[in-house]
Amino acid sequence: MSKLIPQTITCRAAVVFNSGEAPSVEEIQVEPPKTSEVRVKMLYASFCHTDILFCQGFPVPLFPRIPGHEGVGVIESVGENVTNFKEGDMVMPLYIGECNECPNCMSGRSNLCHKYSYSLTGFLPDGTSRMSINGQPIYHLLTCSTWSEYTVLDVNFVVKADSRLPLSDASALCCGFTTGFGAALKEANIEKGSTVAVLGLGTVGLGAMEGARINGASKIIGVDINEKRYALGKTFGLTDFINPKSSEKSVSQLIKDITGGLGVDYVFECTGVPALQNEAMEASKVGLGTVVMLGLGTHEKIEISVVSLISGRKIIGSSYGGIRPSDLPSLIDKCINKEIDLDGLLTHELLLSEANKAFEYSKNPDCVKLFMKF
Amino acid sequence: MSKLIPQTITCRAAVVFNSGEAPSVEEIQVEPPKTSEVRVKMLYASFCHTDILFCQGFPVPLFPRIPGHEGVGVIESVGENVTNFKEGDMVMPLYIGECNECPNCMSGRSNLCHKYSYSLTGFLPDGTSRMSINGQPIYHLLTCSTWSEYTVLDVNFVVKADSRLPLSDASALCCGFTTGFGAALKEANIEKGSTVAVLGLGTVGLGAMEGARINGASKIIGVDINEKRYALGKTFGLTDFINPKSSEKSVSQLIKDITGGLGVDYVFECTGVPALQNEAMEASKVGLGTVVMLGLGTHEKIEISVVSLISGRKIIGSSYGGIRPSDLPSLIDKCINKEIDLDGLLTHELLLSEANKAFEYSKNPDCVKLFMKF
Repeated sequence: MSKLIPQTITCRAAVVFNSGEAPSVEEIQVEPPKTSEVRVKMLYASFCHTDILFCQGFPVPLFPRIPGHEGVGVIESVGENVTNFKEGDMVMPLYIGECNECPNCMSGRSNLCHKYSYSLTGFLPDGTSRMSINGQPIYHLLTCSTWSEYTVLDVNFVVKADSRLPLSDASALCCGFTTGFGAALKEANIEKGSTVAVLGLGTVGLGAMEGARINGASKIIGVDINEKRYALGKTFGLTDFINPKSSEKSVSQLIKDITGGLGVDYVFECTGVPALQNEAMEASKVGLGTVVMLGLGTHEKIEISVVSLISGRKIIGSSYGGIRPSDLPSLIDKCINKEIDLDGLLTHELLLSEANKAFEYSKNPDCVKLFMKF
Repeated sequence: MSKLIPQTITCRAAVVFNSGEAPSVEEIQVEPPKTSEVRVKMLYASFCHTDILFCQGFPVPLFPRIPGHEGVGVIESVGENVTNFKEGDMVMPLYIGECNECPNCMSGRSNLCHKYSYSLTGFLPDGTSRMSINGQPIYHLLTCSTWSEYTVLDVNFVVKADSRLPLSDASALCCGFTTGFGAALKEANIEKGSTVAVLGLGTVGLGAMEGARINGASKIIGVDINEKRYALGKTFGLTDFINPKSSEKSVSQLIKDITGGLGVDYVFECTGVPALQNEAMEASKVGLGTVVMLGLGTHEKIEISVVSLISGRKIIGSSYGGIRPSDLPSLIDKCINKEIDLDGLLTHELLLSEANKAFEYSKNPDCVKLFMKF
């Protein structure tokens, strides 16, 4: 039986043509996978704050572009050198890979592989795109672009999904939740009994809370201007809630007020709001505090008070919470066993045909995470 | 034999009256020590870059003020509750203390004691000054002010000197050298075989180099625009020298060029120059790099590139290199045994009567550290 040679597929995708515009649903062409690539029929995708930033042209304005770096799908075809995946495999895209040979992989202390690094070029690792519209190439988002009926991924940036895992869980593990969770466990490596504050209770912040809870933090303070996040946070380990709008005091002072004036051992800054980045520093303990910076905004620089920093504080910068692709299977198992329960994230779904409303939907205070059905 | 009650002493000191002005030598009054204080007759003092910053009004403009937080002297009189020191003891002032009871002291991971913290108020811990001129109080610098024939110190901010230790060594250990040395050993805890870059080869930078050398760093790159620091750096462990003025490339690129493109494991930023703070980040390894920020300037904020930070880098802020007063005796021993050789620091001396030229002297490219004789 001769194998069919994959052909270019014409399908629908959400495309952003200019910085700041809403996505529009278009017919696009998706080329067959090259030798080390797989073409994936998307089953489900989700929406991360970083997608908005990319679509606003940060850090590099590349248009037209197809958003999305979270999702789950089924392999439709594989490149000729792909041996570890086959048609029909259910997979999740990641924006980083792991060669297990470079100094960073060998160190055991970094998830930023030299060979399969995240890329801001808008291209797959070979330096080209596999997607186009009317002959014009479309940029990938990172090396993903999941808001499309079909996408092409380098096989080194893909992990196997598990059919027992809800599609929404699989999608949320591709970036948001895992970033916060990993930051608490792998980057900060929170000690039992530590005090923790999380600024911004979106999916990343909830992930950090869950990681703090699993590592035995004694106090987990959630900070959000959306009062509805109080109840949600409690399901992820929150012990105290601060709504900064309810007080004229600074966020750092409010955190100090409920920690005997000392501040906390760890702060996870998940908002990217410049004013809160220094508040995160001030809210951490003098001499012992660590701030993990996870939130991104459209500002290219973080501004930190010199006096705050030299008062014995540390800052950790992280991508994907220090999680490596090979860490995913154990995280997937925890979700299947309900040791980690992500049900609370699934508040809103839209169809690909409604993608133009995605950014708008995500502003709804009730919306924790927005998912896309195909 | 009845004990004499200490009286106010009139003596000479270097006083700065306004932000940015040179010190002038004046007759001042120094009150007797209060219950937990000691009055010290200074034998030798030295000049630290931080003294200039304070005299420029950073971070808080408090004038008139007597500079100096490095030095060594002999106790002239003690307060009634002082039991661990007596008249005639040779001591070194520190700007931090250690109560051994607060959470930070008990943690074993911080040198910033809650009870005996550094102070930016210009007063001794009881909230007053012991020095005045024509009835007007003079602000201390931190809780020290060593550029005076006599000064008063809280006994919790004092350590015993050793008569075998050269006066210049004792003085340099009070801040500059120890800050860099401690940053390498206690804050960064450099592993054997690590690669290190030090930006700015002043006393702090040379201390960081010495710490890196003792911990077995495989490469210690010194960066300074003063070519004369090359030979000096070699006596403190330098293996490679970069003079940024000799190239049009960025400092980070020059460091990458001699580390196989990777950058280094640890960067010690000892200049406080804003542009170099982000260069320090870029010069450290993606995914593994740590930057210890030690240099202070007159800028209240440090600006760091978001992309540089989230690429798996860490920033450590430190005061006095994480060194606690109780760490000093072993460091003093290392200097006495010449395991650490500080002779190279002693390039320039002036008399208290020449204090008005101190800031000017320190700009001389041959001047590594400026000392003051009384």
